[in-house]
Amino acid sequence: MFEEILQNVAAKAPLVHCITNYVTVNDCANILLACGGSPIMADDENEVEEITSICNALVLNIGTLNTRTIESMRRAGLRANALGHPVVFDPVGAGASALRTGTAQSLLRDVRFCVVRGNSSEIRTLARGAGTTRGVDADAADAATEQTLDDAVLFVKTFSRQTGAVVAMTGAIDLVGDAETCYIIRNGCPEMGKITGTGCMLTAVTAAWCAANPDHPLDAAAAAVAAMGLCGELAHARAQAAGGGTGTLRMALIDAMSRLDAETLNRGIRIESR
Amino acid sequence: MFEEILQNVAAKAPLVHCITNYVTVNDCANILLACGGSPIMADDENEVEEITSICNALVLNIGTLNTRTIESMRRAGLRANALGHPVVFDPVGAGASALRTGTAQSLLRDVRFCVVRGNSSEIRTLARGAGTTRGVDADAADAATEQTLDDAVLFVKTFSRQTGAVVAMTGAIDLVGDAETCYIIRNGCPEMGKITGTGCMLTAVTAAWCAANPDHPLDAAAAAVAAMGLCGELAHARAQAAGGGTGTLRMALIDAMSRLDAETLNRGIRIESR
Amino acid sequence: MFEEILQNVAAKAPLVHCITNYVTVNDCANILLACGGSPIMADDENEVEEITSICNALVLNIGTLNTRTIESMRRAGLRANALGHPVVFDPVGAGASALRTGTAQSLLRDVRFCVVRGNSSEIRTLARGAGTTRGVDADAADAATEQTLDDAVLFVKTFSRQTGAVVAMTGAIDLVGDAETCYIIRNGCPEMGKITGTGCMLTAVTAAWCAANPDHPLDAAAAAVAAMGLCGELAHARAQAAGGGTGTLRMALIDAMSRLDAETLNRGIRIESR
Repeated sequence: MFEEILQNVAAKAPLVHCITNYVTVNDCANILLACGGSPIMADDENEVEEITSICNALVLNIGTLNTRTIESMRRAGLRANALGHPVVFDPVGAGASALRTGTAQSLLRDVRFCVVRGNSSEIRTLARGAGTTRGVDADAADAATEQTLDDAVLFVKTFSRQTGAVVAMTGAIDLVGDAETCYIIRNGCPEMGKITGTGCMLTAVTAAWCAANPDHPLDAAAAAVAAMGLCGELAHARAQAAGGGTGTLRMALIDAMSRLDAETLNRGIRIESR
Repeated sequence: MFEEILQNVAAKAPLVHCITNYVTVNDCANILLACGGSPIMADDENEVEEITSICNALVLNIGTLNTRTIESMRRAGLRANALGHPVVFDPVGAGASALRTGTAQSLLRDVRFCVVRGNSSEIRTLARGAGTTRGVDADAADAATEQTLDDAVLFVKTFSRQTGAVVAMTGAIDLVGDAETCYIIRNGCPEMGKITGTGCMLTAVTAAWCAANPDHPLDAAAAAVAAMGLCGELAHARAQAAGGGTGTLRMALIDAMSRLDAETLNRGIRIESR
Repeated sequence: MFEEILQNVAAKAPLVHCITNYVTVNDCANILLACGGSPIMADDENEVEEITSICNALVLNIGTLNTRTIESMRRAGLRANALGHPVVFDPVGAGASALRTGTAQSLLRDVRFCVVRGNSSEIRTLARGAGTTRGVDADAADAATEQTLDDAVLFVKTFSRQTGAVVAMTGAIDLVGDAETCYIIRNGCPEMGKITGTGCMLTAVTAAWCAANPDHPLDAAAAAVAAMGLCGELAHARAQAAGGGTGTLRMALIDAMSRLDAETLNRGIRIESR
């Protein structure tokens, strides 16, 4: 399955329009190039519709949202919907402020998302219309664990049914599901939480891979989640071997994505479905 | 002294709200994670009060200030003051434009700062209400040298008395003082000036460490300044050994912070007090 | 020729004011330091004239332009012109939206540029007043190739005559020309296209080197283009040798610039003129 997904990415080199936060935007651009796509960032409301029209996918990431860019996100989302481009949503920090929660819910109402990718607190906030989020990190109580896995799978499927989007709820265990099928992915390592932007980067990769595989958003999103986790593992191993720290980890993560092939992904992936 | 400071950081993992410039924001987020804290960046005036309320400290950095974010800084600062959170100020480029100097002075009037961290030109600009700053770098005439050290120590203590804040005036020799005590720190190396953001990163680390050590802002700030300098030394040695340049130095700096322990800090620190 | 250019940069350490996009701004700041200059980023319309006045050169880069910063670019450009500072223009994505094309053309009308640096699609868009740009990457049909080189040289000279600016049209083959002379530079490697910001970084380096060599903008720009290409080659070789990917390439590129000397540049440069 993943071989074809990667082949399609290589063949199509999807151009991804990102309206995203300024904290991790450089990492998002570099990982998009590393994963076989190409980035363009544009957030002025007077050009976002035109820019998204020449692209193959759209990322809306509310990490440093402001009044100016919220309207740009809405406009770009509607245009991408009209054109049939996949739109991937990253509700960074939903639950941490009324502005974030409200913006996330309003975007979810107005825009049809192909994938919603967030940590468990962000996703649960969207689902229940309110939530507690520890800043941009997930609250431990919201996380999917081995003990709560069946509930979490049900939750993901239900939220996918409500929104029509593939739901990617990532954490120590990643769940990626639609209304029928939920993948459980056990790649990644805790050290990834010590660098900023792994979530934002994953969202960008997801958009590129969904754009190249328009008929298989669930599989493309699951592949992106597994690939990002696997690249984190490879990067951590390399940083450890080199006696490096989190600076090396960040560089090695992008290195790993730029060198990833289907064989490595098939060998390293730890996935099941329920 | 530093052992306890680091233990408190590890135990509390302080969440730091940063309203900061877009040039070095990614480095600030990564060094916050590396030093034991956690970052959240948010600058819209409609959410900054709420965001800062769920955090443990606030950074105000005027490196790329604009009309929109100046008001956000003021609001966040006032809320953090009301909640008793430490607020750390980085007056980047104060003296380089009327907007920067005026904003810095108005923030200094309205917000009670735990620490003010800047280079000598920025700090002296704030103290005398005017100044000359060579862009965002310090003017040589303002720097603390071995010859002018007694005067500089007196200046730091006086400015601390006036503002109520710990004053961290960094350069070739770093001074960190309150009204009574001034630490003189001789860590760091000139090569750190060849990468952007070492000052901004230090400000972020200072905020995290002060948040975890609320009763000892002077010691926490001095430890942060010494740690950053020491990590710069370690990073430079590693970049040199690898035949690397300033790209490697930047990565190795974050590596060093992520691997720093109390033993390394105690062994490497060069500090005295007056 | 390049020896003197590098000596002037080292002697003058030009301070470069950048109004630039938030995607690659950190890389621009670090490469400016690496190439012997010093960066200051400031984009609020209430300070840009003052900031640019204390600098030696100005970069206007429309990569993430918005209504607020467009006016700042115009003001800073006019002030830099009045002061005789070199202004370097990077029309990122001109042709990709009406806002970008219109802004680029209006800046070209209002501000006198020392150098215009862009990919072939961006430059051709400016020259013909309309164009097709694949996002921020060049359209293959616009690129200078061995087959179309004479035409491309003529185009560069003509556009330089029309604008009064040195024109740096970069791609697989780089052309840097004024009305009389066009350098053809064959440094660089395709892998540079797999990291974001090589164009933006080159623009920043060009501004610093032109500021230090005010009487020789054509040679300074050609040296910057060749240096960036050569650093890319060196970085790629190092990344390959280390088994790294595009993360390593990005770091090694800044490393190479920070270690570049006239001997390496003279030995590595592949340049001719027509």
